[in-house]
Parts: sequence; C-alpha cells; structure tokens
Amino acid sequence: MFEATAEPKVFRDPVHGYIRVDLKVVWECINSSWFQRLRRIRQLGGASMVYHCAEHTRFSHSLGVYEIVRRMVTEVADIRDSLSTEEKVIVMLAGLLHDIGHGPYSHSLEGVTGISHEVYTCRIIEEDTDVHAILERHKPGLAKEVADVIRHTSRHPLLSQLVSSQLDADRMDYLLRDAYFTGTSYGQYDLERILRTLRVHDGETIVVKKSGVYAVENYIMARYHMYWQVYYHPVARSFECLLHALFRRVKEVRDCELFSPLWQGMSLHDYFMLDEAYCSCGFGMLAHNGKDAVEKDLAERIMDRRLFAYEDIEQEKAVREAVSRAGLDPAYYVLQDAVSKHPYEPYGGMDEMIHVCMKDGAVKELSEASALVGSIIHADSDDDRKVFFPKGILPHENGF
Amino acid sequence: MFEATAEPKVFRDPVHGYIRVDLKVVWECINSSWFQRLRRIRQLGGASMVYHCAEHTRFSHSLGVYEIVRRMVTEVADIRDSLSTEEKVIVMLAGLLHDIGHGPYSHSLEGVTGISHEVYTCRIIEEDTDVHAILERHKPGLAKEVADVIRHTSRHPLLSQLVSSQLDADRMDYLLRDAYFTGTSYGQYDLERILRTLRVHDGETIVVKKSGVYAVENYIMARYHMYWQVYYHPVARSFECLLHALFRRVKEVRDCELFSPLWQGMSLHDYFMLDEAYCSCGFGMLAHNGKDAVEKDLAERIMDRRLFAYEDIEQEKAVREAVSRAGLDPAYYVLQDAVSKHPYEPYGGMDEMIHVCMKDGAVKELSEASALVGSIIHADSDDDRKVFFPKGILPHENGF
Amino acid sequence: MFEATAEPKVFRDPVHGYIRVDLKVVWECINSSWFQRLRRIRQLGGASMVYHCAEHTRFSHSLGVYEIVRRMVTEVADIRDSLSTEEKVIVMLAGLLHDIGHGPYSHSLEGVTGISHEVYTCRIIEEDTDVHAILERHKPGLAKEVADVIRHTSRHPLLSQLVSSQLDADRMDYLLRDAYFTGTSYGQYDLERILRTLRVHDGETIVVKKSGVYAVENYIMARYHMYWQVYYHPVARSFECLLHALFRRVKEVRDCELFSPLWQGMSLHDYFMLDEAYCSCGFGMLAHNGKDAVEKDLAERIMDRRLFAYEDIEQEKAVREAVSRAGLDPAYYVLQDAVSKHPYEPYGGMDEMIHVCMKDGAVKELSEASALVGSIIHADSDDDRKVFFPKGILPHENGF
Amino acid sequence: MFEATAEPKVFRDPVHGYIRVDLKVVWECINSSWFQRLRRIRQLGGASMVYHCAEHTRFSHSLGVYEIVRRMVTEVADIRDSLSTEEKVIVMLAGLLHDIGHGPYSHSLEGVTGISHEVYTCRIIEEDTDVHAILERHKPGLAKEVADVIRHTSRHPLLSQLVSSQLDADRMDYLLRDAYFTGTSYGQYDLERILRTLRVHDGETIVVKKSGVYAVENYIMARYHMYWQVYYHPVARSFECLLHALFRRVKEVRDCELFSPLWQGMSLHDYFMLDEAYCSCGFGMLAHNGKDAVEKDLAERIMDRRLFAYEDIEQEKAVREAVSRAGLDPAYYVLQDAVSKHPYEPYGGMDEMIHVCMKDGAVKELSEASALVGSIIHADSDDDRKVFFPKGILPHENGF
Repeated sequence: MFEATAEPKVFRDPVHGYIRVDLKVVWECINSSWFQRLRRIRQLGGASMVYHCAEHTRFSHSLGVYEIVRRMVTEVADIRDSLSTEEKVIVMLAGLLHDIGHGPYSHSLEGVTGISHEVYTCRIIEEDTDVHAILERHKPGLAKEVADVIRHTSRHPLLSQLVSSQLDADRMDYLLRDAYFTGTSYGQYDLERILRTLRVHDGETIVVKKSGVYAVENYIMARYHMYWQVYYHPVARSFECLLHALFRRVKEVRDCELFSPLWQGMSLHDYFMLDEAYCSCGFGMLAHNGKDAVEKDLAERIMDRRLFAYEDIEQEKAVREAVSRAGLDPAYYVLQDAVSKHPYEPYGGMDEMIHVCMKDGAVKELSEASALVGSIIHADSDDDRKVFFPKGILPHENGF
Repeated sequence: MFEATAEPKVFRDPVHGYIRVDLKVVWECINSSWFQRLRRIRQLGGASMVYHCAEHTRFSHSLGVYEIVRRMVTEVADIRDSLSTEEKVIVMLAGLLHDIGHGPYSHSLEGVTGISHEVYTCRIIEEDTDVHAILERHKPGLAKEVADVIRHTSRHPLLSQLVSSQLDADRMDYLLRDAYFTGTSYGQYDLERILRTLRVHDGETIVVKKSGVYAVENYIMARYHMYWQVYYHPVARSFECLLHALFRRVKEVRDCELFSPLWQGMSLHDYFMLDEAYCSCGFGMLAHNGKDAVEKDLAERIMDRRLFAYEDIEQEKAVREAVSRAGLDPAYYVLQDAVSKHPYEPYGGMDEMIHVCMKDGAVKELSEASALVGSIIHADSDDDRKVFFPKGILPHENGF
Repeated sequence: MFEATAEPKVFRDPVHGYIRVDLKVVWECINSSWFQRLRRIRQLGGASMVYHCAEHTRFSHSLGVYEIVRRMVTEVADIRDSLSTEEKVIVMLAGLLHDIGHGPYSHSLEGVTGISHEVYTCRIIEEDTDVHAILERHKPGLAKEVADVIRHTSRHPLLSQLVSSQLDADRMDYLLRDAYFTGTSYGQYDLERILRTLRVHDGETIVVKKSGVYAVENYIMARYHMYWQVYYHPVARSFECLLHALFRRVKEVRDCELFSPLWQGMSLHDYFMLDEAYCSCGFGMLAHNGKDAVEKDLAERIMDRRLFAYEDIEQEKAVREAVSRAGLDPAYYVLQDAVSKHPYEPYGGMDEMIHVCMKDGAVKELSEASALVGSIIHADSDDDRKVFFPKGILPHENGF
Repeated sequence: MFEATAEPKVFRDPVHGYIRVDLKVVWECINSSWFQRLRRIRQLGGASMVYHCAEHTRFSHSLGVYEIVRRMVTEVADIRDSLSTEEKVIVMLAGLLHDIGHGPYSHSLEGVTGISHEVYTCRIIEEDTDVHAILERHKPGLAKEVADVIRHTSRHPLLSQLVSSQLDADRMDYLLRDAYFTGTSYGQYDLERILRTLRVHDGETIVVKKSGVYAVENYIMARYHMYWQVYYHPVARSFECLLHALFRRVKEVRDCELFSPLWQGMSLHDYFMLDEAYCSCGFGMLAHNGKDAVEKDLAERIMDRRLFAYEDIEQEKAVREAVSRAGLDPAYYVLQDAVSKHPYEPYGGMDEMIHVCMKDGAVKELSEASALVGSIIHADSDDDRKVFFPKGILPHENGF
C-alpha cells in the first residue's frame, strides 16, 4: 500500500550517522513546503544566546525523531511484531510531523497569541496544506490517523507512547541533539542500550527490561541536567523574556504591519510566513525605524544581544524601584520568570510513565524498580524564580 | 596597555571545548552590534541544503579563528617570543574580525553587487561603526593595524600568515567546524599536532617541523575532500545558482523595496540590515506576493527547496533547447557553474605557501619536503562544470 | 630546585589529548623499572572479560591522574596560589605514583595475600627501589613527603584531597578512561567544567562553586553507573571469584614454584616479578601440566574464559547440593560474592567529602547543596549477592 | 543448515558500537580456546611503546573484522544478492579467523622462526584444534572452505576480496581501531560511506561507485599516515629490533627452557602456549636470572623500556665503531631496520586492486578514476632506514 522510494534515500546526520528514508510518503512530506519551513525555526530559542553553536533547527530534530521511531519499529523485535505495516507508517509520520506546528521562538510567541504549537501541528496535518494533501493521496484518512497519534487519541496505545511519553523518540532525539550542538556532555546517554532493552508488555505498553534500568536512570539524569544547564539557563530566559515583552508591546502598539496577525488573527497562511527569519527581519526594522521608544529599544537589544541582567526574585522590589527611578516602564523593564523541574515524576497516564519489566515478568513503574529513582521522587523540585531588568540599573548586579 | 577583563570569560564551543577571552578589547568587539550581526549570517551557504545540520554561523567561526590565533600566540613558543604584546592583540583581533564583512549568501550576492566581503571587512573596521570605536578607544590607530593584517599590508610578516595563508587559523577552524556540523569526517585533522610543530624561521616565516609534515599532509587532504564533498556539492551549487539568479532578477525588475540597495547603492547601514534573515523574509514576500513571475517562481523554489536539477556541462545544448521549448527564459532557467580545485598548489607569495623546517635547519616549500605532496602537485586540477535547470525538463535527469 | 626537562615531553593520550611532562623528576619516575612495570598490570580485572577492549593498563591511568593533578595545580587559580612550587611537585608525584603498588588482579590476589596494594605503594616509594632513588636524588626527604600525601598524613590538607577524596584526580581519570576503553558512555562527565569551578576555601579545603553542582551531580551518577555496568558486572565478578579460588588452591597445594611467594613470603623483588604476564604464564602451565585436578581445571577455565555461571544468592543451597552431587569440592566450585554501592554517601573525614561554595560564600556539604544528591542519600544501597558455579550444574541457569 | 543462537548476542565495542552474533558456529568459534588465546596477543607490537594506550588485542580486531564482513554481506545489497547463505557464513568465519595464527610480537618472532602467522592460521583451522572441531561439526568440509578464503584459493572470487584485498574488512577495522586506541586521528575515514557505495561488478568483483571515490582516497591517506605515524614509528621499530635480537640470542644460547621450541621445533601445542604473557614472563626471568650477559641485558631493556637510540643509516659506520669501542657485540648492539611505504600501488591481482564503477558503468582501476591517486602513484615510496644502538654510545644522538 505504501510505495517505496526508487532507491533508499539518506540524510547525513551528526547525531544518528544517517537518517534513512525508503517510503515515498515520508520522502514527500519531507519535501513539502510546511516541512521545509522548519529549516527556518530553530530548535532552541534563548539557549543559542548562551551556546553560540546551538543554531540547529526543528527540521533536523524532526528528522531525528522520525529516525528513532523508524529504528524502534524495525529493530526492536517486540515493537516490530506488535504493529501492522500501516501502523508503522503512521507512527513514523507522527514522529516526523509532531513538531510541524512550531512557530518562531514558540515559548515567547505562544505567551502572546495564547495558541499552542500543538494546535497548529494538528491543523497543518488535517487542514488544507501540502502535507495534508500528500498524506491523503497516499491513503485517505491517513492525516487523521497521524494527528490522532500526536494528540493521544489513537486507537493503538503503543503509537503515542513511541512519540510522546516520558521515554519517547522526541526526548531521545532532542537530548542527544541539543548536547551535540551546545557542546555540553550532559545530554548524552546510551540510546543503543535503551533501544536494545525495550519490550512490549501485553501488546500495549512499552517497558524496559531490568537490565536497561541503569541506562534509563542515565537518561533521566541527562534530561534533568539539560534543563538546568541549557534550557533554563538564566541568559536564555533573559532573551525569551525580552522577546515576550517585545511581542506584547508590538501587539499593543499595532504600528508594525509585518506583525499584524498578532492583533488581526492569524490564518494558517500567516503562520506559514511567520518564521524566525521573518520575525528577525521585523525586529531589525523596529530597531532601525521604530517610532515607539519601547519597541525600538527592546528590538535593538534583541538584535545586538544586549540582554537584561537578572537577580533572584527576592530583589524584585529593589529592581522595580530602580527601574521606576530610571523612568522606564516596569511593564516592559521588570520581567519575571519562574522555572521548576523535578528529575522524575511518576505521574501522567499509563502511557506516559516509564515501566520496567522485572526478571520474573512483573511490570513496575520506574521509581519502584530503581532504588535511585525511588529516592529521587522524594526530592523537592528544583525551582528558580528570577527578575530581569536592564543592566546598569542596580549596583553589583549579575552580568554576562 | 590592553586591559584585562574582570574575570576570564569563556564560550563553550563543541570544536575547541572552550574559547577563552581575557582582554576587554576582544570582549567588547564580540559584544558589538556588527559582530553580533554575524549570528545572522551562516558559515555555509548552499551546503546546508545538503547537510541539514550545517546551520552554524560566521559568529561561531570567527570566535574559533580568534581562539586558534590566541593559542598560537600563547602556546607556540616561537610565535610567542617573536611578537610584542601589542602585536599579539592585533593579530587576535584580526582573527576575530577577518570575516566581519561577510553578507548573506556571500557567493551569490557578491556576484550581483560586484563588491567582495573583504572590502566590507576593512570598511567596518576603519569607518564609523561601533567596532571601529571600540578599537580606537583602546588604542588610537589600532583599527588600521588590524585592517592591515587582514589586507596583508602589515609591517610584521608573521601576522598575516597566522590569519591568512595556506596554513592559517581561518582554514584550521573552518575545516574542523564544517566537519563537525555537517557530520562528515573529511575535515578532521590533527590540530594539536600542527600547533605543536609550528616554528618561526628567521623571525618572519611560519614553518612546520619535519615531524609535523604528516599532519600537514592530512590537513591538505582534509581541505581537498571538504571542497568536493561539501563546498562543491552539486546540490549546494544548485541552491547558490538559484539565489544568484534571483538576486539578478530582483536587481533588474526593481519592484521589491526591501532589496532596493541592490540598485540604489548600498551604504554601510544598508549592509548591516541585509542579513540572512532579512533576505529570507524578502524571499518569502516575493514568493507570496511577487508580481514578476520569474521572481515569484525562483523565490518559491528557494523557500521550499525545490532546487534545480543538474547535468554535466556537455548537456547544456539539450537543456537550453528543452527550457526554451517549455517557454522559460534561459537567462534564469539555464544556469551554469564551474568549480575547480587542486589539492595543493605551491603558489602565492612567500607568506601564503607552507614551509617545512628540515632536521638540518634548511627550510623547504611543502611540495619539496613531502613525497606525497610533491607528487600531488603534478595532478590535474579536479574540475566540474555543470548546468542547472528546472526538474522535469529533461527525461532521465539527475534528481535529488 | 626541581629541574626542567630539556624540552617539554608529551604522551599522546586518547582521554586527555596530551599528557605533558616538563620536570626531570617526573620524567625519570616514569622511566623507572617500577613504573614501567605498570604496563604489565591492567586497570580493570574481570571487566575485560565483559568489555573486550578494556585492556588498558595502570600505566596509562597513572599518567592520567598525574595530568589531572598537573592541570589542577597550574590551571585552577585558587589551587595554584595555595601551594608552593615544592608542594605542587609533591602532589603531582603523588598522583603519578599513587597506584604503583598495584599487583596483578589486585582484588583477587589481595584476598589471598592479605596485603593491600596501598602498603606496597608506600614501600616502593620509601624502600630500596629505583623510584625511591630518583625521588631522593632530586631532593632528600621527597619520598616520604610523596608517601605522606598518599597515606593522608601530609601536613598540607589540600594535597591528599587532590589525589584521594570523593572528587579527586584518581576517580576523575578512571571514570573517563574506563568509559573510553569499555566503549560505554556511562563514565562520561564534564571534567572541564568541574576544573573550572574548583576553588579553595580557607586555604585548606577544595570546594566546588555552586554553578558547578550540576557537573558534580553528573560525575556522581557516572561513578554510580560505572560501578553497576562495569566494575560489578556479574561476569567480571565470576572471573574474579575464579581467580581468587585458583590463588587459594595454589597457596594450599604448594606445587607450583612460580607462585611460591604466596606461601613463602613475598619480598619487594618477588612482587616486582609478579605481574599479570607472569601470572598468566603460570596459569598456562597449570592448565597444561597441573597435577592437582582442581588447580588444572580452574586454570583452564581462566585461560579459555569458561567462567562460572551465576545465580542470586537465594539459590545457594540448591547450587551447593548440585555441586556436591556432581562430585566437586564446594570450597572451589561454589563461590560467593556480595557487592554494594551507594550513589553518594556524605561520610569520611572533611578531606574526603565534597563541599560546595554557595553564592553567599557559605560552604555546604554536597547533599545539602544539591536537591538531587540530598534525596539520593536516603536511598538504600543497591546491593547484589551472587553465587557462582560451573555451568551446566543447574537446569535453567544464567548463561553468558 | 547453520543454526541461530538462542537469542542474538552482542559485544560492546568502542569502534563499531556493537558486534552482533546470531549464528551458533560463530559464537562457538569465539568461545574456543584458540580464539580466546587472541586476548593474550596484542594487535600492535612496538607501537604500544610509543602510544601507551594501544594495548588492544587481536581478539578485538578479529571481532571487528567479522562485524564488518557481517555488515557487508547483510547491508550491501549487491553483495547480499551475490552470495548464498553458506558463502556468507564462510566469509564471516574467514573474517573472524583470519588472524588466529598470530603469535606474540609476530614481526620479531617470525624473523627468528622463519614461519609466517598465515601458515599457523590455516593449520589451526584445518588441523586438530577445537576451532577445527567446531567448524566440522557444523558442516563437514567447512574448515577447508574457510581456509581457502584466507589463502585466496576459494572458488568464489568475492570471498577473498572481502577479507583480504586493498579495500578489505581487515584494513577497514584495523585503521579505525588502531586510531581509536592510539588516540591519533590519522586512521579515521568514512566507513559508512564506503559501505554504502560498494557494488559487485559482473558477480565477481567488488567495486566502489564513483560517488565513493573521495571516501576511498581518504581511506588510502589514512592508511598511509598510520604507517608513518604509528606502525613505522622509530621507537616502535627500536622495540621490535630489540625483541628480534633477544629471540635470536635465546635461540643461539639455548639456556632458557621456556623458549626451547625456538630450537627444538614448535608443535601447534607449543605455539598455543607461546602467547605474549608467556614471552613476557620468560623475559622477566632472563632479566632476573639470565646467565648470558647479552640475554640478560636485552631482556632487562625490554622489561624496563630502556630502548635503543637510533640514527639514520648513514651513521652506521660511526655507530658500529662506537659500539665496538664500548666492548659490545655489534651482532646484538648494532641493529638495522628499513621500512618503505607507498601511498597506493595498483599492483596485485585483480582481486587485490581497488576498482571504481563510473557513472556510465565502466570499471576503472582506482588510479585511473581518481586524479589524486593517479598522481600519487608516481610518487617515490617514502622509505626510512635506521640503525639502532644503546643510548649514550654516540654524542648528540636522538633520544626519546
């Protein structure tokens, strides 16, 4: 039913070596305009302000997720035997397309539009786009089946677990990929070992063999450390807060035509246009010609990387006073951000938790099978609340 | 004279581990708006259409060149002892700033403007920019001295050799960096070994000890293979030809205000604005709203990566006929590109060739010191001439 | 006082890139017969039976520890400024020589001789050996000062911490080295980051800056996982139990002249001879000519890697009965081994614990500074008790 | 016919990730005493005296060759389709066993015994050993078929090419492996790319697609540089000359019982015993108790790594005179060694040369298909003749 490509296609990839494509439907989705758009959306937002090489895009991450799913459904015997050919194609496509709805600087932009990228992902797959047309041409109804996996409404419980759970192809790829491009070692873990120890329990739950628990513990730690060292780095958050403030101001002032979808409503077509290059171009214009002083200043700061300084939240009052004294509007010049991360929480539905298959065949949730994880779940979440503000406002502030 | 930073600053870098900065003048140049602009100019043009992870920027490459120069002037005893403190600062800055004049897709754009990025590099350093102000504030006359190194007019012959010769910090960084981000192994060579075997001859020529010749041979091969496998990849050239054709058309049609500097003359300020995001945004608008059919089509192709197919130049006549038959303008739909690369040519002035210091102290040009290189110089240049055209025009064409 | 080598010497090392030597006393120690002997003692015992590439020696590990100490005393500003030139030399030598007393298969052999390798380390440094002569020639009294660091009796509290504590150069090297040669990723952590965040508190305690805590957590996890995945692998322990049983038998039967020091007392000279090659040669002879059936069988098993099978300790009674039924002596054919590892325990003296310097200057023990480690200390130790016995004795046993 | 293992077995390998075994006959051969003996024979001889981490064994190399052959016959479509199941098993076994006849320090020992390891390889496969029994039990006649591949007398011309030609699994593994364990980058090349571009021409010749030529050039260079930087390093040769001199002396003096097979004739059983540990143990005894002064001195030098100094061959006369003046026997104290390596020679039979399949289907020998290799074949061989002698004999000699 699903036609093969004339010859196997490969993408050279530093993380996986090669990414292999041998189905036409996959190849055509990759070549669609919506998927190519992901070349213009970076994987990390503010973190590239800290790790200057982390310019990799959602395009490469999406290929990576596809590749891990492809390996899962072809190399892991239990999974291979639990799925029909069609289900394998559906879940590979779901891996490939799960992030297709991401817009520029998602974190900051979604805060202003109020619409999450997941919504766009399903719209792009199910509404009138070239991706949708490709899917339906290969099999009527395919688009909905792919979207169902992404929104956890698929009939087959395995499919969503492969793409979206606490131990899924998405996280498996981004940890390795972000580690590679930031140049940190924190995100590394033993992907090969985890793949080798995956099993399917009762035909519907992904489990890890007991002998793979150490590799999973390692993966949990990798995830935890990437959060604090990369994703939640204060400088990254400073950049994202600044972006969010600028988007807010642009929406309020309504004088920049390029960004009019922010206040006029955003069609799918508008969303297509609104990639990171488009935003950056808009910021450049605001920095150069902006009439509104706040818009102009924030845009200049973003273009020139003159980010806000930061202090622990306890200093907020002092900061607020200093900003007011300096004649700046606290709504845009005193920004707050709170992040929190627990190393591992055994919550979420059955299809999100990590399960372990013991030697005697019993299946346990990870924190019951691992003494290490079992102790960690009692830890307090590590959290961090910061206030951001223009450098030079406070004496003795944190610089960068 | 040159002040130290309050504490040593570091940039995490996947290629060099850390990039270390301990001089204020370097730190400030990095934080200038012109240097930060390099975050919006990618290192590779068309090659990122082949190697999807090669999204790294000239910002990271420029830091990398600086770091290698810094190591040369602090870790290589002969170089350290041959240069004054001031000369060391000058050459580190020259390494840092040598590419600051690069614009978007330099290869394609320069073909239309007729102005090379080297011209902009010196203008940015010597005219009215924040980079210029920083340099002059730290030492009057410093800007010219840095620019002199870049344009090979420096009094001290060593300085230009470190930054720009056949064995310079520029190539040393980009081979390793492009190899890392493409995920190919071709660009790898033994940087540590080469640094360890560098010496200074007669106070003015960089030479490699005989025991380092194998490492240099390896570097020569790395360079050669990166050209053919990455920089000259036909798909990369297809993208660049398409870009060049679009810039040409835009300059001719003159209906896209964003690109007006192409026909009205480009001030430094215009050049500052014209980064890759800006161009990409412009292409998006042309693809969406373009009135001129050629502009619109070429812009769509670039955005959606629907690149031209290619054939060896022998097919040019057949291609030209097919394109005409299809009613397309050959000026934009039959594109040619010829590339040529010799593994190693012992040409250029004394300060560009690679020299080897033999055990008896004699200095020989590389091809005389290495049997391998000595044979290679007699090879014909490998060259490749191709014609590019819309896919589907010819039967049995090369696809990708 | 301590003379430099004529030119800097380097050793190429896959883990550290280069190991740099520029002091004659270090260079001469490396070239001593006792240090060269370490080329004939492998770093891992039984683990090389599981990870077939883990053949690296204590020679390379000792160089690696020296290199990390050398970097600590030259690159970490606080440490560099806290130590005199002489103290730096002493601690580099202590790093280099801390394992010089290791014998073949230390774990198994020490169980039979009852003498730990630490005892031999100090004897080799302080008694009549070429290493001792070198140290004393460079400075009378130096040998004792080096040995004092190793046995934690040094006057300066920093010195022992660098070489032997929960965050010391010894562990730092072996985790990276064992990870490299086994091909596992578990032992990797961010050495550069840890070195960059080391500080000295009150002139006598090594502390880690708060910003380095994640790197230390990572290191703690790396250590924990290496124990379970490599050092405590059941097949590794099977090999070591077998070796221990053979040494026991040899000592009891007393018919193999090569091993006579086991029952006649072992001089330093005997110990010098008794490297792994010597033992292996002896095992080969026993396997070929051994008169005692147990000796011959155990030696054959070791040479041909026909290791014992294993079961959880609960099966011991069943195993013991089966072995007796098979007519084998349980003293040599039913072997037990219990291992236990806690991820991190905040015990040991001040100079063994890991301390963190908070932003306000306060110093806390690691488990108080890290939420993650704070939770982990409440975990139960992971332990594992196994019984080992000849394959084929039990039905349905674990094989390998 | 060839039974599968109960479940797939894997060996963790730093070079290949995992080595996969799923045939009983392969698994049993690996567990044979003759194959396990390869754990006691290192891959590199003298080079481990220069690169201190290069302690890897012929055991790991043999597994690596097997793995590459396994991938060739399963992943390369043309090869997979050209061979019967039985031929695939034969060639995998030939890869696994091709080095099983290696003895200790082959280069030096073979110079004294006059018998090459290839002779032993075929004897071990075809005479009365456990390996032979395993092969014949799985299929009568299998042993001869495996040996035929190794000695190039196989009926199917493809089989020998995979295991032994200028582009074979043997070289493919050892370059990567030796690079990994020495820590040099020279041996790295793009194995994945080469495997992807292999094709079979006319059912009997391995060829590389034109698009793989750069990868092959890279491999040729890797090989060339490994020779000069590792295998032919003067210190490695100094060690091997010393070993050869000692074996010669031992054979002449005939007073060391351990080495009696050297003059009494060597049975297969003797050869089995004579691993590196056995030799090292013997050298230790000679160093300690040797009655013959030359034997004792040479053995001590080997154990303590007090290697001979070296000079270019032109100094031989001066060296010889100095050695005589010092009262030493030139037969053992003036050693010579000449090595020579050409980067690539298009000689050997059809089944040893490298062939390229051009776009038009024509097949060319590599030097005709590659401008680079075409020029290199006209290079002079790089050669190096040295004389080795005790340090301190000459003034101003090369040290290490």
